[in-house]
Amino acid sequence: MSTTVNTVLTRADCERMDASDALAALREDFLLPEGMIYLDGNSLGARPKASLERARQVIEQEWGQDLITSWNKAGWFDLPSTLGDQLAPLIGADKGEVVVTDTTSANLFKAIAAALHMQAAHTERKTIITERSNFPTDIYMAEGITRWLDRGYQIVLIDHPEELASVINEKTALVMLTHVNYRTGYLHDMKAVTALVHQHGALALWDLAHSAGAVPVQLQEANADFAVGCTYKYLNGGPGAPAFIWVPHKHHAQFHHPLSGWWGHASPFAMDPHFSPTPGIRRALCGTQPMISLALVGCGLDVFGKTSMQALRTKSLALTDLFIALTESRCASHPLKLVTPRAHAQRGSQASFEHPHAYAVIQALIERGVVGDYREPGIMRFGFTPLYVGFADVWDAVETLRDILDQRDYDSNLQKNAVT
Amino acid sequence: MSTTVNTVLTRADCERMDASDALAALREDFLLPEGMIYLDGNSLGARPKASLERARQVIEQEWGQDLITSWNKAGWFDLPSTLGDQLAPLIGADKGEVVVTDTTSANLFKAIAAALHMQAAHTERKTIITERSNFPTDIYMAEGITRWLDRGYQIVLIDHPEELASVINEKTALVMLTHVNYRTGYLHDMKAVTALVHQHGALALWDLAHSAGAVPVQLQEANADFAVGCTYKYLNGGPGAPAFIWVPHKHHAQFHHPLSGWWGHASPFAMDPHFSPTPGIRRALCGTQPMISLALVGCGLDVFGKTSMQALRTKSLALTDLFIALTESRCASHPLKLVTPRAHAQRGSQASFEHPHAYAVIQALIERGVVGDYREPGIMRFGFTPLYVGFADVWDAVETLRDILDQRDYDSNLQKNAVT
Repeated sequence: MSTTVNTVLTRADCERMDASDALAALREDFLLPEGMIYLDGNSLGARPKASLERARQVIEQEWGQDLITSWNKAGWFDLPSTLGDQLAPLIGADKGEVVVTDTTSANLFKAIAAALHMQAAHTERKTIITERSNFPTDIYMAEGITRWLDRGYQIVLIDHPEELASVINEKTALVMLTHVNYRTGYLHDMKAVTALVHQHGALALWDLAHSAGAVPVQLQEANADFAVGCTYKYLNGGPGAPAFIWVPHKHHAQFHHPLSGWWGHASPFAMDPHFSPTPGIRRALCGTQPMISLALVGCGLDVFGKTSMQALRTKSLALTDLFIALTESRCASHPLKLVTPRAHAQRGSQASFEHPHAYAVIQALIERGVVGDYREPGIMRFGFTPLYVGFADVWDAVETLRDILDQRDYDSNLQKNAVT
Repeated sequence: MSTTVNTVLTRADCERMDASDALAALREDFLLPEGMIYLDGNSLGARPKASLERARQVIEQEWGQDLITSWNKAGWFDLPSTLGDQLAPLIGADKGEVVVTDTTSANLFKAIAAALHMQAAHTERKTIITERSNFPTDIYMAEGITRWLDRGYQIVLIDHPEELASVINEKTALVMLTHVNYRTGYLHDMKAVTALVHQHGALALWDLAHSAGAVPVQLQEANADFAVGCTYKYLNGGPGAPAFIWVPHKHHAQFHHPLSGWWGHASPFAMDPHFSPTPGIRRALCGTQPMISLALVGCGLDVFGKTSMQALRTKSLALTDLFIALTESRCASHPLKLVTPRAHAQRGSQASFEHPHAYAVIQALIERGVVGDYREPGIMRFGFTPLYVGFADVWDAVETLRDILDQRDYDSNLQKNAVT
């Protein structure tokens, strides 16, 4: 299935779509600036209304009044697991398999290390395959650990998803992919790719930064090996909120990584001078977590409890279908080129277009309250978060884009530098 | 110099000491529960009054209204360095040498890795010396990296600070010590120890978890090599607030570690598929930081801007001198044994006593609003934070302890289990 939107729609049609949208009411759970159309929830999710009150509770009561007793009484120490269990159903994971902790980068490090450790007996398996277009930190973390281990590991960068089948072989230790590409919105078939990876005796690590809360994810059903992801994009956890890591029960006993800090110890308060990992998912923890930022992750997850990933996916595809169709019809005279797949099965919750002056156009859009973002090289990226973006928003965003392109209302931005 | 307090003092004497204490007004910058005497700021610092308003600003304005523009406009991206520069004078560091980021454990990992890398040419240097009584995560992180590198590194645990001189030799790569011991409050002579370490061609890594904000620290003057530390204890940054790492300018060019995430890249937004570290201290960064927790670190640091570490040290020693003297005189009939050094030069900002029923006594104290904590094995630990603890507080704490011991008002706690 792919785009099948009637492109002779009017704004009134979009308003009718909003009126019959069962998810429209969830918009009330978020606060966004008056008049802004926010199509950048794939960079930083919007603020849940509940977050300020939750922060007040943690700061005034848990920290200010209850102090150290909050490590137990307010559940601080357990919070990485409590939030992990709340997040688990959104990614097709079981309870006890996810912790919210540290950064996506650090969690990648743990998962890559654990994968290489699990493959260590297969001394011929020396390659990690990933995509050149993967988010850079994923590649950097693989570089970090392989350079340090200094045992002949190589990182193989593929340029198209289809190359994987020809590159993977008996020398592959790990395939590490981002489920939805941050730039293009390309969505991998997790189940098929994982099966291919396993056929070759390799392990599959998925980065869900742009899929957790954006598309249905079925980690268990796909038989994936490891996953990491971000809570501050589609999950609306707050700026830089702690990331997550998923390790399935089947791999817990073999999950060893070098970031062996006291929060991953079997008995963290026994002050044992030797490290002994706790049996379950908490062995993926390392050090003390930032409780105020961590607690707010719950406010974003609470909103997901009011709907389902399937309902969100249906609306997400309707939004991106509409945006693509309207942009291609109403801005047809302009050199815009869609880089996001048209096929639903290959599309995340975003739509990206190339334009010769992509950076300048994005700046002009932002100046008019339509917030997308620019990504090197030459891409305008628009994220569609069904929790708080509606169909009339899509109409208005495209009309603003059309007007900017028609009027060349981006010329004054042409000299600005994209990379800061 | 050591304890010289007149132990025939009265509460009125203590009140007079408070009345003439130039730091007493700083108590107004903190909120603590009514009637509580909080002697656990070495575990979790008290809440600065300003923190709630700062959280509101970050959540309502920076996140809710300004969204992604806050990465630049609100200084989010720079915040690890901005806070690092604010913290630097408290630890005798220069600007551009400190970042507030990640956890103490993760920062230890980076520093240990970088030290071993700097020593890699000296293939005979295969030992890391630390104390068996060091905070366990320090040892665990050293175990983590050495086990993974698998190049014959060994961790040598010493049982007394004096052993270092006989154990250090030409095989030592790194000496890793916590400046103030979390349990006993023993304070190392950083300058002398670092000089000894350097005489033997080794590097010195200092954990400042119990000294930053507690005692004057002079990293530059001591010619130390690396330091890490915690912001949620004496620095009052909030529960689990991000930690810090110090790398002196002289070591920046050689500072390489495997947690090579995008925030440490020379050009993080250029999306280069290969890692290239940024020249300065930001190469110690890895992934995206939790902005709300991070921002609140500034509220704690702001209070330190109103005084000096020397003034704080003078009061801290007066408080611990008083607590030790009153406890030993007024509870003289009870089996209390001071484990914190009497000599000022060897004492941090705490006083720890052994007691056969230490855990039960601490529970009884907490029930009466005098909050210290228990540390395995058998220690009652009392932290004295001159920013918000006064001399009458010390009097009242000792009187409460005396009453509990005299009445055996801890018997009901004897069955409780210390390790959770």
